[in-house]
Amino acid sequence: MKILVFIFFIFLNSTYSQDDVVIKNIFDTSLTKSKAYEWLDYLSNQIGGRLSGSLEAQRAIEYTKSELDQLGFDKVWLQPVMVPRWVRGPKEFALIETEPGITFNVPIAALGGSVATPSVGLKANVIEVFSLKELEELGKDKIDGKIVFFNRPMEPEFITTFTAYGRAVDQRALGAMEASKYGAIGVIVRSMTLRIDDYPHTGGLTYGDLPASKRIPGAAISTNGADKLSSLLKIKPDLKFLFRQQCKQLPDAQSYNVIAEKRGSEFPDEIILVGGHLDSWDIGDGSHDDGAGVVHSMDLLNIFNKIKYVPKRTLRVVLYINEENGLRGSLKYKEVSDRQNLNHIFAIESDAGGFRPLGFSFTTNNDDFIKILEWKKYFAPYFINVFIKGGSGADIANLKTDNNVLAGLRPNSQRYFDYHHTEIDTFDAINKRELEMGSGAIASLVYLFDKYGLR
Amino acid sequence: MKILVFIFFIFLNSTYSQDDVVIKNIFDTSLTKSKAYEWLDYLSNQIGGRLSGSLEAQRAIEYTKSELDQLGFDKVWLQPVMVPRWVRGPKEFALIETEPGITFNVPIAALGGSVATPSVGLKANVIEVFSLKELEELGKDKIDGKIVFFNRPMEPEFITTFTAYGRAVDQRALGAMEASKYGAIGVIVRSMTLRIDDYPHTGGLTYGDLPASKRIPGAAISTNGADKLSSLLKIKPDLKFLFRQQCKQLPDAQSYNVIAEKRGSEFPDEIILVGGHLDSWDIGDGSHDDGAGVVHSMDLLNIFNKIKYVPKRTLRVVLYINEENGLRGSLKYKEVSDRQNLNHIFAIESDAGGFRPLGFSFTTNNDDFIKILEWKKYFAPYFINVFIKGGSGADIANLKTDNNVLAGLRPNSQRYFDYHHTEIDTFDAINKRELEMGSGAIASLVYLFDKYGLR
Repeated sequence: MKILVFIFFIFLNSTYSQDDVVIKNIFDTSLTKSKAYEWLDYLSNQIGGRLSGSLEAQRAIEYTKSELDQLGFDKVWLQPVMVPRWVRGPKEFALIETEPGITFNVPIAALGGSVATPSVGLKANVIEVFSLKELEELGKDKIDGKIVFFNRPMEPEFITTFTAYGRAVDQRALGAMEASKYGAIGVIVRSMTLRIDDYPHTGGLTYGDLPASKRIPGAAISTNGADKLSSLLKIKPDLKFLFRQQCKQLPDAQSYNVIAEKRGSEFPDEIILVGGHLDSWDIGDGSHDDGAGVVHSMDLLNIFNKIKYVPKRTLRVVLYINEENGLRGSLKYKEVSDRQNLNHIFAIESDAGGFRPLGFSFTTNNDDFIKILEWKKYFAPYFINVFIKGGSGADIANLKTDNNVLAGLRPNSQRYFDYHHTEIDTFDAINKRELEMGSGAIASLVYLFDKYGLR
Repeated sequence: MKILVFIFFIFLNSTYSQDDVVIKNIFDTSLTKSKAYEWLDYLSNQIGGRLSGSLEAQRAIEYTKSELDQLGFDKVWLQPVMVPRWVRGPKEFALIETEPGITFNVPIAALGGSVATPSVGLKANVIEVFSLKELEELGKDKIDGKIVFFNRPMEPEFITTFTAYGRAVDQRALGAMEASKYGAIGVIVRSMTLRIDDYPHTGGLTYGDLPASKRIPGAAISTNGADKLSSLLKIKPDLKFLFRQQCKQLPDAQSYNVIAEKRGSEFPDEIILVGGHLDSWDIGDGSHDDGAGVVHSMDLLNIFNKIKYVPKRTLRVVLYINEENGLRGSLKYKEVSDRQNLNHIFAIESDAGGFRPLGFSFTTNNDDFIKILEWKKYFAPYFINVFIKGGSGADIANLKTDNNVLAGLRPNSQRYFDYHHTEIDTFDAINKRELEMGSGAIASLVYLFDKYGLR
C-alpha cells in the first residue's frame, strides 16, 4: 500500500528524481534500521564519560573499533596520538559564607585543565564582574587577593544557542588566566547555559603562558548558584566564598583516533570524511557531546550497506580523540593526512548534539555553495531546510583547502546547552528518532557528494 | 554592542525591511518576556489534567480568563456550551493469564468514552488483528466472545509523526464499534506511539449508532505490553486476558469557551483568531496537548503589548473546550459566529505540542498561498522554513470559507507521540525556549496578516 502511494506520488510529481528515491530510502532506513541508538546506549550506559587519557576513553576506542570492524570497511585502525590527561579528583565543594558560621552550599564543577585549590580549600572575598574587560577597569587594587566571579549570562535572544555560547564562553576559557594577572586567587564562572538550574557546566580553560605559580583554580557554578551569589553580594559585599577542588594534570597519555575506511569504487583518491569526537567530559556520559556524533558517523556505512549503495569515492569515518581539552586527535589526523597528501574533497562533522536535524552549515566558496544549494530540495520532505554558510566543526576545520567543502550538521540547538558538559548529558536525554534523523541527514548529504563529487 | 551589530547587518543587507525588524523584535520578546512558560506551569502543575466537565476544566477556564483579563483586551468572556462528561473512575487493571494462576500484569488505560467492564473485570481469549478490515476477513466465527487485540504499530518512516498517527488511529477510534459487530466482548488497542515503553496512551473512541447493549469496553495497552501479549499469543494462543475499568459517561455538563477580543484600530470587522484547546485528557497534565497551544494563544497580546504593536484588525484569542472528546466548543463557536456573521480572515491553531516550531501548514487557495509564501523569508533567521499546504487544526477547521486562510503551527513532531495522551505529558517535558519560539512564530505570522490583510 505504502509503495503504491509512493509510486503514485512519483508519477504526480514529474520532477521526482532517482536521488529523491535514494534519499527517501536513506531516511526510511535511518528510521527503521539505524544502529545509532543501540551503539549510543552502550557508549553512554556501559562506558560513560570518557575524558581523554581515561580508562573509559580507552574502552570507547576499543568498543567503537570492534563495532566498525563488523561493518565491512576495507580497513579499520587506531591512529596513535598522545593526549593530555587531566583528572577531576573527588567531588568539588563550595559554599557562600555570609557571616562566620552562616553558610550556603552551591554546586560547582572544576573547569577542565584547572589547578587544584589548597587541600583545605580556598576562601576569600568575591568580586563580581561581567566581562574580561571589566577586570582592566577595576584594576589590581580591587581584584588582588580575591576570587573573581564572572557572571555574564548567555543571551536568550540568539536563536542559535551556539552563538550565545560563543559570546559568553570567554569568561570560562580565559577568565582564570586574565584574573590572575590582576592578583586574583581563584575564579568562579557562571555556567554556560540558558536555563536556571542546579547543574554546573564544566569545560576547558587555558592558562596560556602563565607560569605554574600564577595559575589559579577555576570552577563553574550552577546558574541558580550564580544568581544566589550575585544577590547575596548585593546585601553582603564582604561575604566570603570557599571552594575546594583536587583536580590535577597528569603526564600525557597514549591514545588513539579510530579510523575506518571504505575504498571508493571509481575515485578512490577522493576522500569523504564523516566524523565526531570520541572523548567527552567526565561528568555525565557525553550522550549529546559527542556520543551522538560518534554514532552518526558509524551509522553511515550501516545505512549504505542496508540500501546496498556502493560508494564511488573513499569514505572515511574518523572518531577523533581529545576534542574537549586539546584537539590533539584533530592535529594528529591533519599531520598524517598532509604527510600522505590525502585529498579530502568533503568532510562533515556532527558535534552539536543528537537533536532533530534542521540542516547543515558549510565552509565553502560561493561557487560550490551555489551547487550545494541545488541539493537542498532533496531534504525538504524531511523539513531539513537550513543550508547556510558557517563553521563545520572543531575537529575537521583544519582540513579546509581551496578545493574542498567542509560541513557541520545543524540540529535544533534549543536544548543543547541544557545538557552540555553536565552530569545530565546522559542517554535518557536522547530521542531515538531525532538521533536517527541525524544519521539520515548525514548519509543523504554524503550520498550526494559521493555521487556527484565536488566539480 | 548587539544593537550596533544589528544595525550594521541592516546596512549590509539592503533587502532588510521594517518587517524584518518587527519580527526580530517579536522573537526577541518571545525569548525574553513571554509569559507562556509561567502560565503553563500554573495550568499544568496547579490545575493538572482537565477533561471536559471536570472541576479541573472549570478551574482552567477561570484561571485563563483571569489572566486574559489582565492583558488589556477590550473584552474577555465565557461562551457557554454543554460538554460530554466522561469519568475514568479508579485506576484500570489488566493481566495476561497464560495458564490458571500464571499471570503477567500489563499497563492499560481506558479509552475515552468507553463503557466499563463488569465490576469483576472482563476475562476472555484474545484474537490479535492488525486492521479493521481483518475483522471482516476473520468473521464472527473467530471473533465472537473474544477480546480483539488491535496491534498495528505506528509506522516509523513517516517524518511527520502525525501522519503515522493518522494511519494507525482508526484502531483506537473505531475498533470497539467494529469489533462489536462481530461479537467481540472487549478491545485492547496498541498505544499510539512510536516508542516502546510502559505508558498506555488514552484517546477517544466512538460507538457510532450502536445501541447501549452492543457497546463493549476498549482500553489502550502500552507498547511493551502489546509486544508481550503478541509474543505470548504466538506460543499460547489460548491465553486469557483480563481487564477491569470502571469508567462511565455522566450527563452533559455546563462548560465554556474562553474568548478574548481586542478590537482592530482600522478594520475592526476583520477578525484574526488564534486558538488552542483548554481541555486535556485526565492522565498527565496536558502540557503539550494542549496547554502549549493555550499559552501560545494567550501570549499573542502579551507580546504585541511589549513591542507596542497596535493591531489594525480585530484579534480574538479562543481557548476551546472539549476538543478531546466531542469538539463541542468548536461547534458552539462556529454556530455563534455564523449567527453574528463574523468575518474571520485568518485563524491559526496551535495543537501539535510545545516543541520547536518548524513552520506552518495552511488551508488556503493557491493565490493566497503564493502571497503567504512571500512572507517565508521573514522566518528564515529563526530556521522556521516549513510553509506547506495542509490542515489547520481540529477546532478551527470549521471556520474555513472561500475567502479566508486557516493555519496550524507545525512544531517538530518527533517527540510528540512520546507524551500524547499519557501520564508523562507533563510540564517537565516542556522546554522553555521551544515553547516561547512557538509564541514568537504565531505572533509574527499574525503580525503579517494584521498588517497586510488577506488581499
